[in-house]
Amino acid sequence: MASLLPQPPLPPGLPVYQQIAGRLRAEIESGERAPRARLPTIRALAAELGVNRDTVALAYEELSRAGLVEATVGRGTFVAQRAAAPAGTAPLEPAFSQSVERLVSLDRARPRFAAAESTVPLHSLVPDPALYPVDAFRRALDRALSAGRGALLSYAGAQGHEGLREVLAARFREGGADVTADAVTLTQGASEGISLALRVFADPGDVVAVEEPTYHNVLSAITALGLRVAPVPIRDGAPDLGVLERTLARPDVKLFYTMPTFHNPMGTTTTRAHREALLEVAGRAGKPVVEDAYEMDLRFAGRPVPSLAALDRRGLVVQLFSFSKSLFPGARVGCITAHGAVVDALVSLKHATDLGGALVLQAALAELVSSGGYDRHLARVRRELLARRDALLEALARELPAGTTWTTPEGGLQLYVELPGGIDTAELLADAARQGVLFAPGFQFRHDRRPSSGLRLSIAQADAAAIARGVAALGAAVKARLGAPARRARDAGVMV
Amino acid sequence: MASLLPQPPLPPGLPVYQQIAGRLRAEIESGERAPRARLPTIRALAAELGVNRDTVALAYEELSRAGLVEATVGRGTFVAQRAAAPAGTAPLEPAFSQSVERLVSLDRARPRFAAAESTVPLHSLVPDPALYPVDAFRRALDRALSAGRGALLSYAGAQGHEGLREVLAARFREGGADVTADAVTLTQGASEGISLALRVFADPGDVVAVEEPTYHNVLSAITALGLRVAPVPIRDGAPDLGVLERTLARPDVKLFYTMPTFHNPMGTTTTRAHREALLEVAGRAGKPVVEDAYEMDLRFAGRPVPSLAALDRRGLVVQLFSFSKSLFPGARVGCITAHGAVVDALVSLKHATDLGGALVLQAALAELVSSGGYDRHLARVRRELLARRDALLEALARELPAGTTWTTPEGGLQLYVELPGGIDTAELLADAARQGVLFAPGFQFRHDRRPSSGLRLSIAQADAAAIARGVAALGAAVKARLGAPARRARDAGVMV
Repeated sequence: MASLLPQPPLPPGLPVYQQIAGRLRAEIESGERAPRARLPTIRALAAELGVNRDTVALAYEELSRAGLVEATVGRGTFVAQRAAAPAGTAPLEPAFSQSVERLVSLDRARPRFAAAESTVPLHSLVPDPALYPVDAFRRALDRALSAGRGALLSYAGAQGHEGLREVLAARFREGGADVTADAVTLTQGASEGISLALRVFADPGDVVAVEEPTYHNVLSAITALGLRVAPVPIRDGAPDLGVLERTLARPDVKLFYTMPTFHNPMGTTTTRAHREALLEVAGRAGKPVVEDAYEMDLRFAGRPVPSLAALDRRGLVVQLFSFSKSLFPGARVGCITAHGAVVDALVSLKHATDLGGALVLQAALAELVSSGGYDRHLARVRRELLARRDALLEALARELPAGTTWTTPEGGLQLYVELPGGIDTAELLADAARQGVLFAPGFQFRHDRRPSSGLRLSIAQADAAAIARGVAALGAAVKARLGAPARRARDAGVMV
Repeated sequence: MASLLPQPPLPPGLPVYQQIAGRLRAEIESGERAPRARLPTIRALAAELGVNRDTVALAYEELSRAGLVEATVGRGTFVAQRAAAPAGTAPLEPAFSQSVERLVSLDRARPRFAAAESTVPLHSLVPDPALYPVDAFRRALDRALSAGRGALLSYAGAQGHEGLREVLAARFREGGADVTADAVTLTQGASEGISLALRVFADPGDVVAVEEPTYHNVLSAITALGLRVAPVPIRDGAPDLGVLERTLARPDVKLFYTMPTFHNPMGTTTTRAHREALLEVAGRAGKPVVEDAYEMDLRFAGRPVPSLAALDRRGLVVQLFSFSKSLFPGARVGCITAHGAVVDALVSLKHATDLGGALVLQAALAELVSSGGYDRHLARVRRELLARRDALLEALARELPAGTTWTTPEGGLQLYVELPGGIDTAELLADAARQGVLFAPGFQFRHDRRPSSGLRLSIAQADAAAIARGVAALGAAVKARLGAPARRARDAGVMV
């Protein structure tokens, strides 16, 4: 495909997305980009130009409004005014599966924003790379490979590196769970664990009970597998057990996915009494509970509560763990811990899906954990996160108008804010981005994506000073919208 | 669970599986293992004892025949004579999805064998760890991480490391394919690529056309996703295009999965004319073709034939590639190359499944390929494989009885043998294992697992001398069976 921007830069006064749109417009009008030609994907052009994907999306949106290009859901963006291709060589577009059609539509509905470099990223749960123990991991990797040699570069077996499963099981036992390494299967982060757990218990067309709000990527995984959602509302920081009981009683509901500790997006942690009652409910229904404990190692305040896995006496809990939030995501290592025959089913499914993970990274993590390097890292990160959380709570009290409420997490990377005055936070996001802050709007965490006055703020990437700046910007955006005489119509497409 | 074998070893004269069975029998009869107690999984016990899984399977089989334990499909193995557990705490066994029930049954039907250390492994396609360039990769990994730092330990983005996608696309272009890095999505080996490709085009209940015989793990992946198989027979080393045309005309058949180069298990490569005709057939049906090019870099003889991807003019071919056979499997890196909107769908699906792969391993591979280290390795491996193939062909001509036929691969790790006299190679495997050689019996590669007189031999792990020894053992087993007066009944369970 033709490369963009070999010419001298346009006047720097224009926003970047308008510069990109202008260039493309010139190339289309000159015929350099022919009718029906496919434009580079947003991803590719963003990478080529070194800009945010959302900036490119905005440029394409502008060209589309001008009738110069045509975007088809899931098909890409093409120069308008199509001409017929020679017979027998015309590109054919094979039909996608229905699940994937739905997934692609869902992906296109995610919020996009053109963000300046200085924008405070309170939207992202990706931990700050400045905090990763890169050299400790490099040494662990080199030591593991020097010792393990070729055997570490062969197949892991679908269950994964035994040494890492041992050290993880030992940690889980310290937390009260009755597990051995044999119960632990290593996965590509908790994400793959979610997909595997869904597939073990649910066939396409079946229903998965999830909290509402819930982690938006679990909604994607459910969609991608052709499953459906039964929402269980969160009240006072915990799923409503009455609704859960009625939901699990339905024969088409096969499992419950829950985040009792440092919930995403809520930031809340349920009590031991609630957990015991939840396990009673699940036990009466005989339905499995998938406990996503993805941030379990990030407690920085308060007293630990035993996990569902530790309280489980009936083998119904399948627990997900990940190094992605507490260490770094790039090893793509997490695990799924289960009981009895569920373990064998998970291993079979993992084998049928990708034969297993990368043994060398698993061995290096085993080394990092055994040597104490992981715990030293956790101590440092927890101190930093506590300082950031306190800065966030203080800034919220200082900057947000009366009627705003928020949760107070004892660990993890996020908290949840509810705004007054019926503000739709999907609309607010555009104002906030212009003010210099990004957040995750609440509609993303709802199964039907209906408007929400809630938003998730993250302390993963911003330090205390940036948090103060970002919350001040957020407060200004909220106050401006509360003072505005009328609410704007919600943008149909990309949000700016 | 109780550990095994703290006692002094049993007389070494007994086969290992009988030693294990004897220990377990003693523990059960003494009550040390209580009624209803779950035995360790085969996997776990094999790892604990440092023996082959099949050895443990044989031990369990013996205890089962003795009525001491009960094995339930997919549920594990338990000490017999069950007693009731206290009410309210009895373990509950949540129901599996139908797809997973079927997958677990399929897994249990795989051949098992108790193999002595000296057995020649002509069954496995896992490349010989002695050939891996461990130190070159170690250096590449360390250089990549020193340069990339924390950014290499963050999320890759679902499509994966751009540098590796660039070097792979450049290699594919050298092979004649019209692709850029933007068309390439990195996967966990070709295996994950298979799962992703199936999911993009087929919903549960849909049908996938596959060659027969075909790669047994693609049959597992199809089962695990709730899909069905339409077999297209291989005749004269290539899929029957008449059958393919009729199959792809069915509306429930959504795609064709094929291995035109160094087919697994056949070892055959189709002609350019056949490939062009195949693409015509697919084009008329408008159905996508998934070309598994997992051994494409392992040609050691003959002239290259353009890939389906290189001949494709209609964007119907989705190509899978892997480093697993040509370099080593442990990086768990392969890729899937597609066109237009299919790329976006694959990336969405990869994101929804596991958020993406491990950037640091991808970066190290990019470095290894760019620096020429991968090509130097390929040159060395191709020489070795050619020598091994020649040794195999000579041994087959020398040792196998008249009426035996085999294929002559120009690359890759395997060839296929057809035996005379109606021998069922699933039965023969037990004899061969006793004679000191393992192979992959043909029934594994058939969608309905019906008996086959074919078998796959691999040169991945045995050098020329071992190959000669192994084929001599195979020849002896075949001749003995041909000379035997009657055929034994086929074993129902584990094969010994």
